[in-house]
This record gives sequence, structure tokens and C-alpha cells, in this order.
Amino acid sequence: MADHFADRLSKAVQAKGNPICVGIDPVYQKLPKQITERRDLNDENDLEAAIDAIFEFSTKVMRLVAPLVPAVKINSAFFERYYWEGIENYYALLQEADELGLEVIGDVKRGDIGSTAQAYAEAHLRNPEFIDMEDLVAPDAITVNGFAGVDGIKPFADLAAQQGKGVYVWVRASNPSAGALQDFSNAQGQRWFELLAEQVATLAAQPEYMGQSGLSCLGMVVGGTAAEQAQGLRERYPHVQFLVPGYGAQGASAADCAAFCTKDGTGALVNASRSIIYAHENPTYKETFGPQWEKCIEQAVKDMQAQFVAVLRGQQPL
Amino acid sequence: MADHFADRLSKAVQAKGNPICVGIDPVYQKLPKQITERRDLNDENDLEAAIDAIFEFSTKVMRLVAPLVPAVKINSAFFERYYWEGIENYYALLQEADELGLEVIGDVKRGDIGSTAQAYAEAHLRNPEFIDMEDLVAPDAITVNGFAGVDGIKPFADLAAQQGKGVYVWVRASNPSAGALQDFSNAQGQRWFELLAEQVATLAAQPEYMGQSGLSCLGMVVGGTAAEQAQGLRERYPHVQFLVPGYGAQGASAADCAAFCTKDGTGALVNASRSIIYAHENPTYKETFGPQWEKCIEQAVKDMQAQFVAVLRGQQPL
Repeated sequence: MADHFADRLSKAVQAKGNPICVGIDPVYQKLPKQITERRDLNDENDLEAAIDAIFEFSTKVMRLVAPLVPAVKINSAFFERYYWEGIENYYALLQEADELGLEVIGDVKRGDIGSTAQAYAEAHLRNPEFIDMEDLVAPDAITVNGFAGVDGIKPFADLAAQQGKGVYVWVRASNPSAGALQDFSNAQGQRWFELLAEQVATLAAQPEYMGQSGLSCLGMVVGGTAAEQAQGLRERYPHVQFLVPGYGAQGASAADCAAFCTKDGTGALVNASRSIIYAHENPTYKETFGPQWEKCIEQAVKDMQAQFVAVLRGQQPL
Repeated sequence: MADHFADRLSKAVQAKGNPICVGIDPVYQKLPKQITERRDLNDENDLEAAIDAIFEFSTKVMRLVAPLVPAVKINSAFFERYYWEGIENYYALLQEADELGLEVIGDVKRGDIGSTAQAYAEAHLRNPEFIDMEDLVAPDAITVNGFAGVDGIKPFADLAAQQGKGVYVWVRASNPSAGALQDFSNAQGQRWFELLAEQVATLAAQPEYMGQSGLSCLGMVVGGTAAEQAQGLRERYPHVQFLVPGYGAQGASAADCAAFCTKDGTGALVNASRSIIYAHENPTYKETFGPQWEKCIEQAVKDMQAQFVAVLRGQQPL
């Protein structure tokens, strides 16, 4: 864990031969019936039953994808809605992912002014040092909201660098209304998200943040759905790692997303959440595999892999 | 609780005669020694001891200020850093604040794309409906990060309106580096935070969000330290409530902050965190009250009250 996050991640991407990150965004009502119809898990109004079902599903998904992909992203919102018991399960899943040898991103999107950012960084990036908590691990990286500017980003990046972890600042979102806010331009045609990207990239270049791979522990989240707008970020900031959501359910293509990888196929993780974890709802997979939801997930990952290998082979072999 | 948040808050501000919100941002190392030197609480590396000390301090602060101010704001970061046990204490404090008759704001600054925002809204705005959780209350309002734009704000505002609760979108931050990002201007001189304010204000005007007081359940966080930049927001958006941080430790004056109130003294809450809860570290109060930290806090609130009453009296009697 003392090694640099970017170096560790690059090795994992090369070992698995693809840059895919599977997003764990579990919603009880969308879980396979084989899980939620089990007697002990069959009550969405019982918090214990609901969170147990989600934990079981999430663990199974991670075990299925661990041999295939380098990373998973666990979205804290879907655990927070089960209060402290949800959070306890979130931390237990981080541990599970770590034991499976996956790089794990805590998708927490935290952000505030410096003094509060410091407290959030302690919560989400420091491996616990409290008595009896030493078994717990913080995620390998988290997502951060950079709204407060450099003051609010630095406490996260500093602690990440110290702990061998990473931070991805949300720079350009993947949702429909993002552009109306983030593409706001000045008289010279510079867009607001480009200004934020510039601030993040400048901070990311600090020597104490840089790994041997030439990549910083401070990176950016840029939606694959905004590929056109984000064109050029990869070239402009060769030292920055990208986390690219928007593939699958949100509509970005493999080519849109692979454009964020460096020439050797590293430098970016492409996340897919709903298109993978709810593959059992996809008519194509359903027809082939029937009630075997695990097979649907495996096949969805393999199909996504094949697309990325093909696109990236156009650039270079991984 | 079925009544409208803005109506309830306006009544509370009028009843207390001031718009002060006390921010609960507790850091173990800064607590009064009378608490942390107690044998059962005297170990910052013991998670139970640390969070018990913080809970005891926060409860005492809320009891001290409840007769004096209409609202408190509880900052989730300082609880999250104690993992699920911290979060359990955060929810217990919400309950405590509710029983004290305070309006309580959960300062969570959550924000994400729509599907995730929906899950965060469930976590932080819905009064729990799970079996055995019915005693728990969600806060009266939360802070939200509007980075994703309208898609990411609407799930929070919709659930708030339905639950008689409120949402404050972070529009202009109070920290030093905020301006470099948020004051970015287009060719017409419109600043980025003004665009965000416009989007929030337009959404806030939806009839289903409006209370009888003429104020919406959807408001904005605007730093008192940015009073100059934010001048005009109050007049431009008469239907919007403001939550104004930055007074005290961050340097905004009573006049800067009171400018966000409407003519009748409602329409804004002015938050002070560190200048109140750590008043025992302030040399002036220390000299007068010695080790009686509770008296320091009470006096700090009364001094802040006096300043606001004087400034607002210049406008009108509360």
C-alpha cells in the first residue's frame, strides 16, 4: 500500500489487459429475484434484509468480475441510504474488494472548504488507525467534488499522496444538464470545466504527487458522454489519470472512452455500472442465460472487454 | 413536519429575533479539556471515546444555544471520519436537535448525477420508513452541491418538498480559492456562480416548491465573504432563502451577512461555527469566564446576536 496509486493501477490495467472499472450502484428493487426472493432477504422495508441483500449481491458481483477487470467503483450513495448500517457494509465491501486484489474506488464525491475537506479526507482516504480498526482499509482512490477550488482539493490530494492512494476530481459530468453549467465560456472561448481541469492539472504536477509511471495520484473524472468537449484533455495533461463514466446506460461508446487512455493503454479507467450489474435485465443476455444472472454479468463484462480491446488495438496492443 | 420548511423557518427566526445558525463542526483535539480529560473520554485513538466526547460536546452546545437561536447546522464530515459509528451519532444528534425545537440543517454537500442524487436524497431527506427506524428524523434541510446542474438538484428538491424539508444548493463558496473558479465570467460579464444561481432560482420558483411565506424550499448557500460579488442576489430572487456561512472565523461582517435577509429579517440564516463552538479558545472570553466553556459559548452567541439585532434594526425591527 505504500507504493504509488498510479503505478499500482497501471500495473493492474496491464495485467488484466483492459481499463474497465465495474461500478457498484446497487438498488434493492433491481437486484436479481434469486436474491430478493430468499425468505431472509425478502422485505425492502426491513433495513437489515435490504442491506444484507445488497451486500450479498455486491460481493458476488465483485467475485465474478475480479478475474476480468482491474478495478471496481463503489458508490456510497446507495449505502448511505441505509444509514450507519449501510456505511458499515460499504466499508466491509472495500475490504472484500481489497482481498480480491481489485483496485477499489470509493465514489463519494465529497467536497467542501479546506477545514471540512480535511475531515472528509480522514474519513475516506486514511487507513484507520483507531484501536481495533486496523483491519479496515480505506479505498485505493476516491472521487472528489472540486467546487471549492484548490483549497478544497489539496487536503484530499495531500493525504492521498501520503497514504499511497488517489483522488479523482469531478471535472466534466456525464449527465444531460451538465453542459448548461460546465460548458459556460469566457470571451476567449475557454470553458468553465477547462478552467477547473487546468487548476487540477497544475496541482497534480506537484512532484510529491507524481509516481514513477509519470502519472499523478491526482486525476479527473470526465464523462465519456462529453468526449467532444473533453477532446484534448488527454494530450494537454499527459501526467493526469482519468476516470471515465458514461459508458453503457448513459450512452458513451468504447471509442469515446478509450480516447482518455494513454498510448500504452493505461492512464484511464472506464466505468460501467448499470449496464454490467443489471445485465440480467438486458433482453439479449436474458434470452441466452435465463435466470443465471451471474452469467449475464460475466458476459456483459466480456462483451465490454472485447470492445475495448478492439478499439485499443487500433492504437496499440495492451 | 408536514408544513413547509420555509414557513417553519421564518416563524423560528421571528420567534428568536435573530437569523443565527450555530454550526456544529466538532474536532476532538479542539474540545474543552473538561470533556476530553475525563477518564472515559481521554483517548483520541479510541474511536468510541473520541465519538462519545464529540457527541457529549455537541449535545451540550445545542442545549446551550437552543433558547437563543432558531437553527443549528451539523457538518457530517466531522462524524464521517469516525465511520459508521460517527454516522450513527450524527443521526442521534439530528434527533436531539429536533427534540430541542431547533431547525436543523444537515451540512452534507452531497451531489451527483440524477440516479445517484436520488439515493443521496433518500439518505438525507426522507424521514425513515424502515421497520424499527420510525423514531429517526431526517434533518429539516440539507446542503447540496449543484455541480451536475438541474438534473442533479431536482431529486433533492422534489423529495424535500414532499417531506416538508429544504435544500440549500452551494452557489458561491466562502473560502479563499472559490473566486478563481466561481467568478469566471463570460463575454457579457455574467459570472459562473450567477449562472448557477439563475438555474437554482428558476427551479426554486416551481409552484410545488413554494411556501405560504413566499419563499421556496429550494435555496442557496452563498458565502458572506463574497458579499460584494453576491450583491443583488437577494433583490433578484425574492423567493429564495439563503444560508450564509463565513461569519466569524472566515472574516465576514454582520452587515455583509445581514444583507441576505429580507426586509422583515427572515429569508436568510447566518451560520457561525468555529467562532461559537470554540469560544473557549478566544482570549476575551477565556479571560472573563476561565474554565467555564459553556459560558464562553453563550456569551459568543449573545455577542453575535447583538451585532445582528443592531444591523437589522437599521433595516427594520425583527
